[in-house]
Amino acid sequence: MKEFDDYLKQLEKLNYSKLYLNDFYWTWDKTEEELKAIFTVADALRKLRTSNKSTRIFDSGLGISIFRDNSTRTRFSFASACNLLGLEEQVLDEKVSQIAHGETVRETANMVSFMADVVGIRDDMFIGEGHKYQKTFIEACEEGYKTGVLEQRPTLVNLQCDVDHPTQCMADLLHVIHTFGSLDALKGKKVAMTWAYSPSYGKPLSVPQGVIGLFTRFGMNVELAYPEGYDLMSDVTDIASKNAKASGGSFKISHDISSAFKDADIVYPKSWAPFKAMEKRTEYYQKGDKKAIDDLEKQLLAQNAEHKDWTCTEELMKTTKNGKALYLHCLPADITGLSCKEGEVERSVFDRYLTPLYSQASFKPYIIASMIFLARVKEPVQALKKLWNTDSKRCFF
Amino acid sequence: MKEFDDYLKQLEKLNYSKLYLNDFYWTWDKTEEELKAIFTVADALRKLRTSNKSTRIFDSGLGISIFRDNSTRTRFSFASACNLLGLEEQVLDEKVSQIAHGETVRETANMVSFMADVVGIRDDMFIGEGHKYQKTFIEACEEGYKTGVLEQRPTLVNLQCDVDHPTQCMADLLHVIHTFGSLDALKGKKVAMTWAYSPSYGKPLSVPQGVIGLFTRFGMNVELAYPEGYDLMSDVTDIASKNAKASGGSFKISHDISSAFKDADIVYPKSWAPFKAMEKRTEYYQKGDKKAIDDLEKQLLAQNAEHKDWTCTEELMKTTKNGKALYLHCLPADITGLSCKEGEVERSVFDRYLTPLYSQASFKPYIIASMIFLARVKEPVQALKKLWNTDSKRCFF
Amino acid sequence: MKEFDDYLKQLEKLNYSKLYLNDFYWTWDKTEEELKAIFTVADALRKLRTSNKSTRIFDSGLGISIFRDNSTRTRFSFASACNLLGLEEQVLDEKVSQIAHGETVRETANMVSFMADVVGIRDDMFIGEGHKYQKTFIEACEEGYKTGVLEQRPTLVNLQCDVDHPTQCMADLLHVIHTFGSLDALKGKKVAMTWAYSPSYGKPLSVPQGVIGLFTRFGMNVELAYPEGYDLMSDVTDIASKNAKASGGSFKISHDISSAFKDADIVYPKSWAPFKAMEKRTEYYQKGDKKAIDDLEKQLLAQNAEHKDWTCTEELMKTTKNGKALYLHCLPADITGLSCKEGEVERSVFDRYLTPLYSQASFKPYIIASMIFLARVKEPVQALKKLWNTDSKRCFF
Repeated sequence: MKEFDDYLKQLEKLNYSKLYLNDFYWTWDKTEEELKAIFTVADALRKLRTSNKSTRIFDSGLGISIFRDNSTRTRFSFASACNLLGLEEQVLDEKVSQIAHGETVRETANMVSFMADVVGIRDDMFIGEGHKYQKTFIEACEEGYKTGVLEQRPTLVNLQCDVDHPTQCMADLLHVIHTFGSLDALKGKKVAMTWAYSPSYGKPLSVPQGVIGLFTRFGMNVELAYPEGYDLMSDVTDIASKNAKASGGSFKISHDISSAFKDADIVYPKSWAPFKAMEKRTEYYQKGDKKAIDDLEKQLLAQNAEHKDWTCTEELMKTTKNGKALYLHCLPADITGLSCKEGEVERSVFDRYLTPLYSQASFKPYIIASMIFLARVKEPVQALKKLWNTDSKRCFF
Repeated sequence: MKEFDDYLKQLEKLNYSKLYLNDFYWTWDKTEEELKAIFTVADALRKLRTSNKSTRIFDSGLGISIFRDNSTRTRFSFASACNLLGLEEQVLDEKVSQIAHGETVRETANMVSFMADVVGIRDDMFIGEGHKYQKTFIEACEEGYKTGVLEQRPTLVNLQCDVDHPTQCMADLLHVIHTFGSLDALKGKKVAMTWAYSPSYGKPLSVPQGVIGLFTRFGMNVELAYPEGYDLMSDVTDIASKNAKASGGSFKISHDISSAFKDADIVYPKSWAPFKAMEKRTEYYQKGDKKAIDDLEKQLLAQNAEHKDWTCTEELMKTTKNGKALYLHCLPADITGLSCKEGEVERSVFDRYLTPLYSQASFKPYIIASMIFLARVKEPVQALKKLWNTDSKRCFF
Repeated sequence: MKEFDDYLKQLEKLNYSKLYLNDFYWTWDKTEEELKAIFTVADALRKLRTSNKSTRIFDSGLGISIFRDNSTRTRFSFASACNLLGLEEQVLDEKVSQIAHGETVRETANMVSFMADVVGIRDDMFIGEGHKYQKTFIEACEEGYKTGVLEQRPTLVNLQCDVDHPTQCMADLLHVIHTFGSLDALKGKKVAMTWAYSPSYGKPLSVPQGVIGLFTRFGMNVELAYPEGYDLMSDVTDIASKNAKASGGSFKISHDISSAFKDADIVYPKSWAPFKAMEKRTEYYQKGDKKAIDDLEKQLLAQNAEHKDWTCTEELMKTTKNGKALYLHCLPADITGLSCKEGEVERSVFDRYLTPLYSQASFKPYIIASMIFLARVKEPVQALKKLWNTDSKRCFF
C-alpha cells in the first residue's frame, strides 16, 4: 500500500467533480478520471482504516438497502461501507418482488428516504426491469427533494442491475490493479471473460457485461468467449468495442474458450444465461406465468448441459501466460467435485486461488464506501486530509 | 421554517414537564401545552438537521421496535427517529402474533429492554388487545426498573394501537399547521374525517379515532361521516365531543359524505371496519377460529362494497372551501384506477396532492423523535440550545 | 455495587493477558484469573453505564451474529453488548441450518468479516457439530487475517454450542456472586444442577454442561442429578470432577432430585435430552432423515413423560438451605399451570423468584461485552480509567 499522501496527490490531478451529489448506475456513465478517483479514495479509506483512523463522515443518517433477490456478500459489503462512514443500514425487505409500478415505487422511495443519504439497490433478475426500477426509485427521490419533501437527495448505488454490476467489477479491477502494481501496468494485458458451465440456475448477465464494459477502458485486450447462443446485450458489447478503440486496447468475441485462455493474463470463467432467454423470462414474469418461467429454467439448464466442456480446468490454466493467469470470480462459484458434480471450475484451480479470490472480494466494501464518499463530500481531498490528521481513532484503545 | 430561537422561546412558555420519563399512548392523555411542546421540538429537530447540526442525544442505547403487523413506513419512521437521536434500532420480530399473555409479555419486556431507552409498539389488529399489550409490556419494564433489573425505564411510543395512532395523527396535524401557518390559524376550520370505500381489507379504527381525538383539541369544526353501521368506539367519540366543547370548536357525526365535504378546509377520506366487526374478529381470534375470521373478512368486504359511492371524487372536492380543501391520507391509499378498480380516492385527486401527501408523511420521524426527546431529556431548552451552538455537524464535510 | 476503583485494583492483581486477541469457546479453556477478569470488567462496564459514562471503544465496526437456531434473548444480549461498545450488529441469517461444510463456511466466514471485530455464533442443536462449526468459521478468519484478506481477525464469542453455553453460565455465576456477596463467599456452597420435566422438546445439553463445568471451579459442592439415561457428555463430567478436586469443592452425580435439593444453597432445575438421543439426532440429520428426527422427538417426549415427578415444587424448595435456596433458570422455563400443564417448576416457586431470575439474565449483555472488551483492548485497566475519567456521557443531557 502506498503512503497516504500519494493518494491525495493522485486525487488532486483528477477531475471528478461530477461524482458529487450524483448516482452510480453504470461504469460507462463515468469518465476514466472519475473511475480512477473512486479507486484512489477506496485505497485511501482502506489506508485510514488499517492505520486505525476514523473514517466517519456522518454523525447520523441511514443507508437504505433494497435486495429484490437474495444476497449475503453484497448485503454485508453495503452494510460495512455504510458503517465505515457512520451511516446505519436499514433493509427494505420487499418479499414479493414486483416489476416496477411507477406510482408505488415513487411512494415507497419517498417514505423510506426521509433520513437516507444513500440507497443501494440490487435488482438483477429481469431484463429491462432492474435498471428501470433503480431509475424510477431515484427519480422519485429527486422530485421529493425538489418539492421539499426530502431534506436531502440520496445517492443511488447500483448493487447489481440487469445491465451492470459496477460495485463488483470495480472491486474486481481494483484487485487486478493491486495484483499487477498499477492501472498503467494493465495496458496490453489479455483478459478472458468466458462463459462456464453451471448446473444451478440461469445466472444474470450483469457480471460479464460489467467486466467487458469496464476492463476495456484501460488498454487491455479483452476476449469475450461463450458458446453460440449465449449472447450478451448488444448495447453493452457495442460499448466494449468503443471503449477498446478509445483506450488503445482491443475487444473480441469468440466461441472458443481455448483461444480466450491462450496466453491470457487474467481469466474470469463464469456462467450466465442467454440474453434471449432472459428476455423471455421477463415476458413470462410480466404475464405472471410461473409455469412458463419454470419450464424455461429447465430448458436453460438442459442447454447449459450441452456445454459442460466450458469449464476452467488445470489444463486450460496451463495455456495461460506462464500458466499463471490471475483467476477471477465474483463468488460463489460452482466448483466441480465440491459444490456440484460438474461446474464452472476444477476444485484444484479454485483452491489454488482461494486467497486472491477472497482478496478480490475484500475490495467491495471500500469501492461502495468510496462511491458514497465521493457523492456526499464536496471537497474530498480536504476531508481525507482531515481524517488522516485528526486524532480520531477507529478503535479507541 | 422559523428561526431556531423562536422555537426555544415558544417552548419556554409551555408547561410540559410531565412528558419527562413518561410514555405516549394516546393524545388525549396529554395537555394542549404538552402537544404543542412536541410539535415545537419536532420543528426544532428538523431545523437542526436541515442546518447540518448533530441531533444526537445518546452515545449508545437501543430503540426496540415491535410490529405485530406488517409495516414499512412506520418502521422506517421509528428507525429514522432513533438514528437521529443516536439510538440503534433493534426489531423484535414476533412472527406469531398472540393475544397478550401477562407473564410471557412480562418476561419478554424485561429480556429485550436491558439497554433500551425507547420501545415502539404497533399492535392494532385486535380491539381491546393492542393497547393492553402495550400497557402490559411497559408495566413490566416499570417493575423491572423498580426492582433494579433494568437500569433505565424505557419510554413507550405507541406506533399504533387498537384505539389511537398518535404518531400518525400528530404528524398529520403538524403538516396541517405548516400548511395553514400556525396552530391558531386552525381555529374555526372545518375538517371532514370520512369513511371511504376500500376493496382491500377491514382496516383499523385507530386513524379516524386518532384524528377526531386530536383535531378537536384546537378549535376546529370536525365532522365525522360514515355509512350506517361503521361506528367507531364510543369512548373516543365521547372524547371528541368533550374536546370540541372545551376548545371552542365542534364535533358532529353524520352519515353523509357530501355534508362533510361541503366547505371543508381539510378532508381525510379513509376506510375502516365497523367497530362491531372488529370486536367479533377479536372474539374469533381469542378462540383461534381462523375460519370464522376469514368468513368475517368476506362479509366485511361485501358490506364495504355496498358503499362504493363513498369515495373522494373531483366532484366532491369541488364542494370544499374554494374547491381547494387540503386532502390528507396516512398512506397507502386505495386509488381508483391505479392500485384498485374502485377505491378511496380518484386518481386525479390523489395525484394533485402527491407532494403535500409526502410532506405529511415526512413529519412522522420528527414527531417520534420529539416524543423520545421530551421523554428522555430533562432540560429540553438547554439541550436544544447546546445542540444548536456546538460545532457538531451531521455531515462532517 | 463497588466503587469503580475497586474494580481496577482487582484487575491489576489478575493475569489475563491471554484473553487479548483470543476467542471464547468454553469456560474450561480459561484460567480462574481470566474468568475473574471477565466478571470484573462486566461489573466495571455496568458501573460506567449506570454512571452515565460512555462505554464506547469503537468508532465503527461490526459485530456479526449467526443464529442457526431461533433466539430472542441471546440475540438482544449480543446486540446490546455490541451497541454498548460502539459496534453495529449485523445478523447473518442462515435460514437453512446445515452441518458445517468446510469450504463453504470458510468462504462465508471471510465474506462477512471484512469489517467484523467480533462474531457471535449460536449453534447448539447437533452434537459434534456446533463447536466444530464455530471452530471452522474462526479458523477461516484466522487464515484470512494471516493472508491479508482480513484487516483484523475477529474474536469469536460462543453464544451456545453443543458443549458449553459460556455467556449464559458466566452470567448465571455473576448473578450468584452478586447474590452471595463475592466469589470467595461461594466456597462450600451446595449447588443442585438437576434435570426437570419438560413437555416441549428435547433441549440442548449446553446449559447443564456449562454449569457443572464452571461452578466446580470455585470450591462449590455441585450435585448433578438426573433420571437414569439422561447422561451428559462424559468429557464434561470428567472436567467437572477435575475442577472440583482442584478448587477444593466436590462434584457428584446422582439420580435423586431430593438428595440434590437437600440443603442446597442454589438450585438449577432444567430439562435436557439424553446425550445418546442427541447423538442419534445428529446421525439422522447428517443423513437428512427428517422422519427419523421427528420419530425420535416423539420418543424423547414419551421418555420425558416418565419423569414428571422431576419438577421444582414448593415442597422440594422447603428442603433446601433454610428453605431459601437461590433458584436459577436460563429462561424461558416450562412453568406448570402457566406455559404448560406440567413442567419444570411450580408456578408459585417461579413467581417468587421472578426478580432474581430477570436480574440473572441482566448480566448477560455485560458478560458478552466484557468478553469482547478483553479480547480487543490491549490495556484494559488504562482504557477503563480513561472511560471513567473523560467527560463522554452515554446520555448527553
